[in-house]
Formats: sequence, C-alpha cells, structure tokens
Amino acid sequence: MHEEPLPPLADGEVLVRNHLLSLDPYMRSRMDEQGSYAEAQELGEVMMGGTAGVVVESRNPRFKVGDPVIAQFGWQLFGLSDGKRVRKVDTSVAPLSAYLGVLGMPGVTAWYGLKTICRPRAGQTLVVSAAAGAVGSVVAQLARLAGARVVGVAGGAAKCSYLINQLGLDAAVDYKCGQLEGVLADATPDGIDCLFENVGGAVFDASLGRMNQDGRVAVCGLVAGYNDHPIPLFNVRAILNRRLTLQGFIVSDHMEQWGAALAELTGLVKTGVLKYRETVISGLANAPAAFMALLAGHNLGKQLVALT
Amino acid sequence: MHEEPLPPLADGEVLVRNHLLSLDPYMRSRMDEQGSYAEAQELGEVMMGGTAGVVVESRNPRFKVGDPVIAQFGWQLFGLSDGKRVRKVDTSVAPLSAYLGVLGMPGVTAWYGLKTICRPRAGQTLVVSAAAGAVGSVVAQLARLAGARVVGVAGGAAKCSYLINQLGLDAAVDYKCGQLEGVLADATPDGIDCLFENVGGAVFDASLGRMNQDGRVAVCGLVAGYNDHPIPLFNVRAILNRRLTLQGFIVSDHMEQWGAALAELTGLVKTGVLKYRETVISGLANAPAAFMALLAGHNLGKQLVALT
Repeated sequence: MHEEPLPPLADGEVLVRNHLLSLDPYMRSRMDEQGSYAEAQELGEVMMGGTAGVVVESRNPRFKVGDPVIAQFGWQLFGLSDGKRVRKVDTSVAPLSAYLGVLGMPGVTAWYGLKTICRPRAGQTLVVSAAAGAVGSVVAQLARLAGARVVGVAGGAAKCSYLINQLGLDAAVDYKCGQLEGVLADATPDGIDCLFENVGGAVFDASLGRMNQDGRVAVCGLVAGYNDHPIPLFNVRAILNRRLTLQGFIVSDHMEQWGAALAELTGLVKTGVLKYRETVISGLANAPAAFMALLAGHNLGKQLVALT
Repeated sequence: MHEEPLPPLADGEVLVRNHLLSLDPYMRSRMDEQGSYAEAQELGEVMMGGTAGVVVESRNPRFKVGDPVIAQFGWQLFGLSDGKRVRKVDTSVAPLSAYLGVLGMPGVTAWYGLKTICRPRAGQTLVVSAAAGAVGSVVAQLARLAGARVVGVAGGAAKCSYLINQLGLDAAVDYKCGQLEGVLADATPDGIDCLFENVGGAVFDASLGRMNQDGRVAVCGLVAGYNDHPIPLFNVRAILNRRLTLQGFIVSDHMEQWGAALAELTGLVKTGVLKYRETVISGLANAPAAFMALLAGHNLGKQLVALT
C-alpha cells in the first residue's frame, strides 16, 4: 500500500474518486513476465484494472463534478486523466457496478464470443464453463435467448442451483462432483455443438470429447493452470474427427463491436431479461485476497472491490 | 488374401482392373472401432482405399474398354461398379498415378486447407508437417506460390534435402534432430502465421508455441499417436494468448470445391510448376507392410501399391 498526495489538475484533466475496482481473471496472466496476450504488469507501477467512480474535480469541459464514469485507473482510490479513456455512464439504466460487469468488458466478451464464434442455433447444445461468473452468466443467458439448450459448468451445489433456478439454464454440471465426464455426458445427451471455454484444464478436455461435428469453441479464458505448469489437453483428435473450429479471442481486439454489444446488453438489462450477480468485498487492502479467491472460483457473478 | 471368381457383369456395370492402390494415413483411423471421423472398417470386408486402373469390360455406355479411371475399389485387383463413383481421367495431362496423389484426394486436401483455413499472405510464414508427403508437398508449393515463407517439417536429412533442393522451400526442419524446438525457432525467426498440421504430437505442440497473433491452423491429420494413447498438447494457452483459429477438416465434406481445386492443380502440374514424388511398392501382399511404413514416415511423396 502506497500513499502520495494528489497533484493539482492541469488544464483538460479530470480527477475521479474510484468507488469500485473490477477483478478479472486476465489480471493473473499480466503477472507473468511473458507469454500472455497482454503486456506484463510492470513492477513498481499501479496494478492495472477497470474502475468505476465519480468525478470529483474537472478542468475538462466533457466532465463535471458528480459524473459517474468508468475507466482503467487500476488498483487505487483516485484516478487522474486527460479524459481520453474515461467514459460517462448512465446510472439511471443500471447501477454503477453493472458497468464493470454485465454492461462492461465481461458482458461484451460474452456477447462477442457467443455471436461471432459459438453462433448457437435453436435446439443446439451450448456448454459454458465458469457459468456463474461474470462472463459465463451472460453467455448462458444470451444462448438461452438464441434458443439453445444451455448447460452451465460451475463449482459446487450453490452455483449450480443458481444456474438452474435463477438463470433458467437447462442443466448444470458441478465440476467438483468427482464424476465430471459422466455427469457432463448425462447433461449433454445430444453432444455439444458450441463450447464457450472460460476455464481450461479438465473441464475443457471433457467438453472437447463430447463435441459434435462442425462444433464451435470460443476460447475465452484458461484460468486453470495459471499458477502452475500448463495443463495438457488430451482430446486433441476431436478437433479433426469432429471438424471443430477453436478460436481464441480477446474482446479488446474488437472495439468496433462494443457499441452494438452494449446496445443489446443494455436493452436486456433494462427490461430485466438479463440477470446478473455481484460479489463485493470492501477495501483496497482486501483486493489481493479477493483476487486469489476469484481465481479459486469463490465468487458468484462479477467480483468487485468497494473502495471505501 | 482372399480370391474369388469375378461375376458376370450386369447391365450398366463396369469392370476395372486396378493398377494402383493408394495408401493414406486416414486408413489407420478407420481401423479403430470408434472415435474417428469416418465409419470404421468392417471386419471381413474388403479394406477400403482409392484405386486407379483401366476398364477391362463395360456394359455401361459412359465407359469403354481401355478407359483409365479412378475409384474407391479398395485393396483388391479388380473393381466392379455401376459406374457412379468411377471417374475417367486424362492420362495425357499426367500419369494415372498422379490422380491418386497431387491430382486426387491428397492434392485437393492440400488446396482446400491452404486456401480456406491457412490463407497465407505474401511474406507470412507457413509451417507444414509431413512436408515431403503427398499432402504436405502440395501445401508447401502452393504456399510458396502465394508468396509465403515456407518451412517444411520432415523426418531425416534426405527428406529435408528434397524439400529445399527440389521443392524450393525456404527452410526444412528435421523433427528427428533431437532439438526440435530450437531448430524450429531458428527456422521461423518471425514466428508462424499459418500451420498446416498433418502429424500431431510433439511437432504440433512445438509449432503452436511459435504461432503469431491471429494465426490460422489447419488440422488435417494427427497420425502421431494413432497406435497408442492420445498424445497430449501442452501449448494450449497459445490458442488464447495468440488468438489462434484451429480448424479440423476432412476434404470429403467439401466436394463442391473439388472442381476448382483440380482445375488449378491440373494447370500447375501441366506446366511443371507443381512437382510431386511417389513411393511405389509392388504387390498387394506387400500393402500392409507399406502402410505401416507410411505411418512411420518411410515414404517420400505419395505412397502407392502397384497391383502387378
């Protein structure tokens, strides 16, 4: 924890008090020196991250004191910016926190991977891992709206109950059940046409083994194994035998689609069709522990830190 | 080995004396009871396979005695057919054998995977495994014609020399060299944009580890491990980090493209631009040994059996 005085604002600058910090699995990959899709987090710099807050001082005509905004100010209480990557949001549509989740990067990630890569058709089976998480829960609901049979994979009975009873999924698979392959087979009697992969490892492998011909796999996250040696994949031959298409993607490569994605997601949130949950922990000092809990799957929905 | 007398021809039938039998890696996967993309080979039935031969008797107006044809008559000396899946070929363009290789299924496989999935652009690096084989050698040459820097992976110095000196590839990697990762890295200083994978296993894994952002991987064959447990893949995270697209394909799913493929390939063979080699063994009794040699990589170019 490091404190320093806030400098006076230069002309064009805006000062934001961050109220919420977003914790996301991609941060883990920035903590390796290389090999990820993103630049490594520099030591000695503020840890990166999405933030939601309120403008407390402005010398920029685009912002006035009290404006709710989201930005990438990282793990800190205040953010100072020339305003370029600060975006005003409408808290009459949804609370500020939603703009870090269902109406933010996780929501757009879900939308893009589902619409562009998975492309479920009515009656097809879609499996999504980390289905109770910020991305997975949006994938699952959008796929249901597209008419797919949706099977969510999550850890533990509470999350599985949430998937069935709150999100209305067709089936839930508890990957901690000790019988992953059998339970997944029971939940996908017609095989899997679309897989939205957020986790990697054994769940990914088991799902690949049940893919149907011409299946589509959106590779969105491979959290499993981030902390250790890579987890090998065994069902490689399914790629050939089932003529699968696997596509890795990072939503920030597709900024041109954010407008369309947010328009649709906002409409669905406004009308209450698209549901979301948040797990909020208080205090920046608790962010590291909350982040490790996120990687261990202890959160339900979007993991946030309230910057009290 | 089983002999039986030829039945008399019914009206509309054609009898072909097969001169050449094609041996292809996909046959191995038909020898498992399940799990492949194709129907399993039934025990007690003639082993399947592509054949080239000459019409010796015809009661079908489309064929006359002496017509050179290709068909799927399997591992036998004669083929009897209603003519539906028998195709006349022009031996003034290329010898009969070519229609089982560069101007047959392997050539079209190479063409389709390269044009549709790999899509190399001028200056990009393409790696192809089993580069001295029937499919790989066509992939390599077509990619060179598209302006790509082409690196072929093959086993042994003789094949690597062939790739460089006869096919004009930019680099060759001997996967038996014991230093696969280092040699592959030296041969692909700018990484790999396109991978045409014919083998699987360690070469596939090492290649994935060197893929560039937005790389395309055509998964055409996974011969490695056919005889044993599946070989796991470790560089799974590259799919996400490099935003790769991996696509498995079987050329027989894309018959509508054969005309365009064969037109282009025929033109290139006619003008001598597209080169090919064949490894021919004599005698049907030697086909099993030749097939095992093919899976072990002992062939150069297309593996054929002369049905003397």
